[in-house]
Amino acid sequence: MNVLYVYAHPEPTSLNGALKNFAVARLEAAGHSVQVSDLYAMQWKTPVDGHDNLDWQPGTRFDASLDSKRAFAANRQAADISAEQEKLRWADTVIFQFPLWWFSMPAILKGWFERVYAYGFGYGVGEHSDMRWGDRYGEGNLAGKRAMLVVTTGGWESHYSERGINGPIDDLLFPIQHGMLFYPGFAVLPPFLLYRSSRVDEAGFASACAELGQRLDSLASTPPIAFRQQNAGDYQIPALTLQPEVASGQRGFAAHRQG
Amino acid sequence: MNVLYVYAHPEPTSLNGALKNFAVARLEAAGHSVQVSDLYAMQWKTPVDGHDNLDWQPGTRFDASLDSKRAFAANRQAADISAEQEKLRWADTVIFQFPLWWFSMPAILKGWFERVYAYGFGYGVGEHSDMRWGDRYGEGNLAGKRAMLVVTTGGWESHYSERGINGPIDDLLFPIQHGMLFYPGFAVLPPFLLYRSSRVDEAGFASACAELGQRLDSLASTPPIAFRQQNAGDYQIPALTLQPEVASGQRGFAAHRQG
Repeated sequence: MNVLYVYAHPEPTSLNGALKNFAVARLEAAGHSVQVSDLYAMQWKTPVDGHDNLDWQPGTRFDASLDSKRAFAANRQAADISAEQEKLRWADTVIFQFPLWWFSMPAILKGWFERVYAYGFGYGVGEHSDMRWGDRYGEGNLAGKRAMLVVTTGGWESHYSERGINGPIDDLLFPIQHGMLFYPGFAVLPPFLLYRSSRVDEAGFASACAELGQRLDSLASTPPIAFRQQNAGDYQIPALTLQPEVASGQRGFAAHRQG
Repeated sequence: MNVLYVYAHPEPTSLNGALKNFAVARLEAAGHSVQVSDLYAMQWKTPVDGHDNLDWQPGTRFDASLDSKRAFAANRQAADISAEQEKLRWADTVIFQFPLWWFSMPAILKGWFERVYAYGFGYGVGEHSDMRWGDRYGEGNLAGKRAMLVVTTGGWESHYSERGINGPIDDLLFPIQHGMLFYPGFAVLPPFLLYRSSRVDEAGFASACAELGQRLDSLASTPPIAFRQQNAGDYQIPALTLQPEVASGQRGFAAHRQG
């Protein structure tokens, strides 16, 4: 299959760089076609601004949503944006690899989502009515594709456990996995996580590669996280709150997963 | 008092721009000294890279933590980083205003945290022992200061409610309020939130300003969110999980607030 590997780390000789090289080699050895978006190497333009719409005139009012919508509709987006969208259309599976910085993705990757997920591409898709609230959360332009995070942390696994001080890693990743990946339609596979990244020695790296390799070998068969589809009956529309009988008595992120 | 206003929106004539102008005027009228870091206007360099350490040599290995530590210790940080640190030292209260994009802060502001929170300034502070795990989560270089978020969203308040599809706003903001503000020592005031930003008319703007004005008038007296201090007995060290008798039976973000 076609795999897009979106990678956000500034140093090629880092643990992250080594993991990325391992992953790309493993995928290619398995016969997949791989494209890599190495955001630091590409010097990815990070902040959203008027230059993202080629028809925007400096000095005029910039509206992040409206300019994105117009530029996407008129095929007048900045070239780096449309190139990434083309890679997403091409891909069957997209892997996002990054170090967890301040409990989220690096800014350069956040800027990739903000710019590539144009209005009409990543959001603002589909009709709004009494029955549907746009094609999102399980539907959208990226439906039918799979996505997986590969994340390293400096902190210990226990710090990210159910009662760990940083908060559970599943909850920290919810805005990404649910809000950025499931939202435009991706089926989201469980993440690959590597903790205490600064203490990974040769043996640790070998075992991380073994585990990551298995995850890469089973991309097509791994069951995705069972997030609830927005328009399939579990939510009231337009309030978009869970129906009273769904996950009754539950609140928070976990209620948006089935079972 | 001294107030630093960190603002991340690309368009001066936007709702966010108008809110920021209102807030700065209100603070100044109350006699406070205000500095504004308008990240888009400053063309804030967003991604972390080797140039953040003036002693880093292009072509050599860059280590985000280690280069940050060395540059901070040697006073060889990029000038834009040390200027923002100086503003933080000066400030009694820091307000961060931004639109919620993809369930988090804009990339340009994420890059502000990544670069300004140097090793030795924002993290990597204090001793690690059996009793303490660094000066963080309630202690650190920014202890004694207050912080508050001012956040606009496109979505409806119900979408961000306890059972709303986007997840509860308090949980979406936890990685910021707990992970980026409480972590280096800030006392974090409850956020000011404005939903459905694209539908705010004149009356809506007037009522938003009235509410925000009250929040600004009471910055010094508003009780902060009661996040648990890391080194005050609630957590096991070094696992950094809650002691069994603390918030017994609870898991997740909410367990890290008292009461």
